[in-house]
Amino acid sequence: MEIGSTAQNKARLFAGFKTFPAELKAKITSIAKSFKRLGQDDPRRVTHSFKVGFALSLVSLLYYARPLYDGFGVAGMWAVLTVVVVFEFTVGGTLSKCLNRGFATFLAGGLGLGADYFASLFGKKGEPIVLGILVFLLAAAATFIRFFPRMKARYDYGVLIFILTFSMVAVSGYRVDELVVLAHQRLSTIILGGATCMLISIFICPVWAGEDLHNAVASNLEKLATFLEGFGGVYFLSCRDEGSDVDSKDGNGKSFFQGYKSIMNSKNREESLVSLASLHSTWEPGHGRFRLRHPWKHYLKIGALARQCAYHIEVINACIGSHIHASEEFKGKIEGPCSRMSAECGRALKALATSMKTMTDPSSAKSNVENTKAAMKDLMFALKAASVENADFLAIAPAAAVGSVLVEIARCVEKISEAVHELSERAHFCKTVEPTVSPEKPQQLLHRGIIRPVSDATGDVHDENVVITIHEISTDSPENEKVDQHRVPKPGQV
Amino acid sequence: MEIGSTAQNKARLFAGFKTFPAELKAKITSIAKSFKRLGQDDPRRVTHSFKVGFALSLVSLLYYARPLYDGFGVAGMWAVLTVVVVFEFTVGGTLSKCLNRGFATFLAGGLGLGADYFASLFGKKGEPIVLGILVFLLAAAATFIRFFPRMKARYDYGVLIFILTFSMVAVSGYRVDELVVLAHQRLSTIILGGATCMLISIFICPVWAGEDLHNAVASNLEKLATFLEGFGGVYFLSCRDEGSDVDSKDGNGKSFFQGYKSIMNSKNREESLVSLASLHSTWEPGHGRFRLRHPWKHYLKIGALARQCAYHIEVINACIGSHIHASEEFKGKIEGPCSRMSAECGRALKALATSMKTMTDPSSAKSNVENTKAAMKDLMFALKAASVENADFLAIAPAAAVGSVLVEIARCVEKISEAVHELSERAHFCKTVEPTVSPEKPQQLLHRGIIRPVSDATGDVHDENVVITIHEISTDSPENEKVDQHRVPKPGQV
Repeated sequence: MEIGSTAQNKARLFAGFKTFPAELKAKITSIAKSFKRLGQDDPRRVTHSFKVGFALSLVSLLYYARPLYDGFGVAGMWAVLTVVVVFEFTVGGTLSKCLNRGFATFLAGGLGLGADYFASLFGKKGEPIVLGILVFLLAAAATFIRFFPRMKARYDYGVLIFILTFSMVAVSGYRVDELVVLAHQRLSTIILGGATCMLISIFICPVWAGEDLHNAVASNLEKLATFLEGFGGVYFLSCRDEGSDVDSKDGNGKSFFQGYKSIMNSKNREESLVSLASLHSTWEPGHGRFRLRHPWKHYLKIGALARQCAYHIEVINACIGSHIHASEEFKGKIEGPCSRMSAECGRALKALATSMKTMTDPSSAKSNVENTKAAMKDLMFALKAASVENADFLAIAPAAAVGSVLVEIARCVEKISEAVHELSERAHFCKTVEPTVSPEKPQQLLHRGIIRPVSDATGDVHDENVVITIHEISTDSPENEKVDQHRVPKPGQV
Repeated sequence: MEIGSTAQNKARLFAGFKTFPAELKAKITSIAKSFKRLGQDDPRRVTHSFKVGFALSLVSLLYYARPLYDGFGVAGMWAVLTVVVVFEFTVGGTLSKCLNRGFATFLAGGLGLGADYFASLFGKKGEPIVLGILVFLLAAAATFIRFFPRMKARYDYGVLIFILTFSMVAVSGYRVDELVVLAHQRLSTIILGGATCMLISIFICPVWAGEDLHNAVASNLEKLATFLEGFGGVYFLSCRDEGSDVDSKDGNGKSFFQGYKSIMNSKNREESLVSLASLHSTWEPGHGRFRLRHPWKHYLKIGALARQCAYHIEVINACIGSHIHASEEFKGKIEGPCSRMSAECGRALKALATSMKTMTDPSSAKSNVENTKAAMKDLMFALKAASVENADFLAIAPAAAVGSVLVEIARCVEKISEAVHELSERAHFCKTVEPTVSPEKPQQLLHRGIIRPVSDATGDVHDENVVITIHEISTDSPENEKVDQHRVPKPGQV
């Protein structure tokens, strides 16, 4: 029995050895595949890696070349350090770090020398004590300053380098002679390293934070559009044509139903991109289609509205998955306007996204927004007309909820459209020929006297002027939006 | 005229000089106030700043003290650098950076020495070329690896230091003799700096990432509770009692209506805190009420559910601000159950938050959850019964939507309650006296015959012996805790 088990063990061990290369190969293949996928998802990552390698090799020339080494000595090390620490993925990131590092080093170096001089006044005994106290106070104060949200967003790295340089200069001043020569060498090598990074990141396949932001916001609108265009099909028609392409996967292998989810957590990324793209609009110079003073901050507004829209979609999704089944009869009554509204919202968003991507005038989306409004009115008529006998509200509530939230989404899309229009004006998108009168001034339309189908602009007027008492406030104006958002709803409004 | 204007200018200038000190004083006062507010918001910030200053002063002793200086020389500089770069606000952050830095330096130093030796085989001419190529390849590969989301979350700093150290050692090996001595000095000073940081951050007023996470999640539940408890009053009763405290401000000066908004963007913060609190549960040691293997990842689940709830609240808020006015008649019909449901949800969440904060058994929230379910049933009955004659669905839809979304919120609260219960089991929250027999294991109690209060040691055993087949493992032993955490809960256990 024992011999048998030993033999078995041996066989197992042998089999293990035999399968080991295969397993190793499989492991390596899977790692290689994930590398490949990472590179294919965004080929700029590969370029960036090579850029960093190139910058480092270039800077290490300081060491290899005899004349350069004689000039800089061991301080050349600081150039290597600078390149590694400062080189970021986006141009804005690299510039911000370079400038932060440069100015902080300069400032802290000067202060450090001053502190050394001041401490030396206290004699050989008192010098280390005074230096220690100065380092303690400055480090504590600067560390505290890093907690200010504004400082953290823009100058965190600078303050860090400030503490670093100040302590190093102040402390080493106590021992190292010829401190000024050393400081000069160090500053010049840092500038050299920083300049190398800046030049390489700007001139070799640059990755602009601003462009990333622009594309991210536009593609968020597209994701919302994809959901809304497919939504009607899923909610109302799913039982009828199951083989339709509503469940088709998009590029990332996720169902289109999930695409919008990534938008909900986009706030931090958008804010950091904005802060990289513009410090008083100056981190990144003008590039490609973007001028120096491109209104980057305006993207935050569009991004916030897109997130708002995504939250609504999340709730609609939850309602769809709800356990209460809506009455099919009622669903049938609101199906038409709901589907149309959702699809038109999707089309409007798609048009807005395209206009952003091509940086052309977004007025082609206006007709979609108008259609959305018309569909909203139709939905309201359908709701008014849908007085079912002995209505079971329990069965109606979920469908009514979906309808109501869709109305909110349509309003959101309208706001997004306004925000994109504002962006197009402030960023001077290319104008296309506009055939229609702009709908912002409805009061002109009121005096027309022509009977039109409900889907045109006049319908709009009646719809928006719900607050009867306040005639002079146009609900389209941005001020009114602001008031709406910042004020807690008053009892009357509720 | 000219004389007059010159006199005027002079007067203005003089007035400017006169008001300048006042303006300066106002400016300084406002800055001082914002400093004070920053410190009062979280006094740990002040402590942290002093800790950094203290650590720096301590490390700079390396320079001042003659015997220490003779041992480390200029390399003592690296200890200062390490302290500045490595000291983070939370213990987990500091430990993670220290360990990352230590291991990366060690590994890259070794590899750098190997690269130097390898390059020296190619002769004096070939050496810089081979070194340059090696630095280029390694830097590019390591930079690419930083793009992997997993690496970025945990080892980003380590990889950065790896590139840094490797290039510095490889490059300077070309010039500096006695490289091994230098590397040894550098490594030991880094270890010294790192150890100083770790000791100070752990033993002087420690800020634990885990505790922060725990409190953040609990206070998110509280914010949701505050909204839900006040909601019924605002939506249904606002017209009647206008003087109520629903508009009262909370501590942060925001209306309670806005408190939940911060939850929607909490994902990134929670994830980073989890990754600091636990790397295979080992960044932060056990502290205070938290054991070493506290189920930190479980907080992500609760956090995600809280965010889900916040999205729903956001939509309800949008519905409240909607332009379509709901029929008062219909609102009156659903008012009772809706208000009750919302208030019970709020109470349940408050009970759960309290149980998390005090780390006691959350079963007191169970009754609230049951009440919520009862209110949900009432709402459904009310909806079924509310067959208004000639119903105007347009006016009903918004209220129906609010009702439907409230139902979804109630479901969410139920899930949160389940998640908190799971947490309380896995983290062994203190049991309070439970009047009922624990549902997990009734059969053992049947054979005992001795009645004891459940809160004592036997009660503990009975409660913990969920895995029926393995009697000899006491669940209080650390081994079993390990098993508990790494195994996915079996259906029987759950």
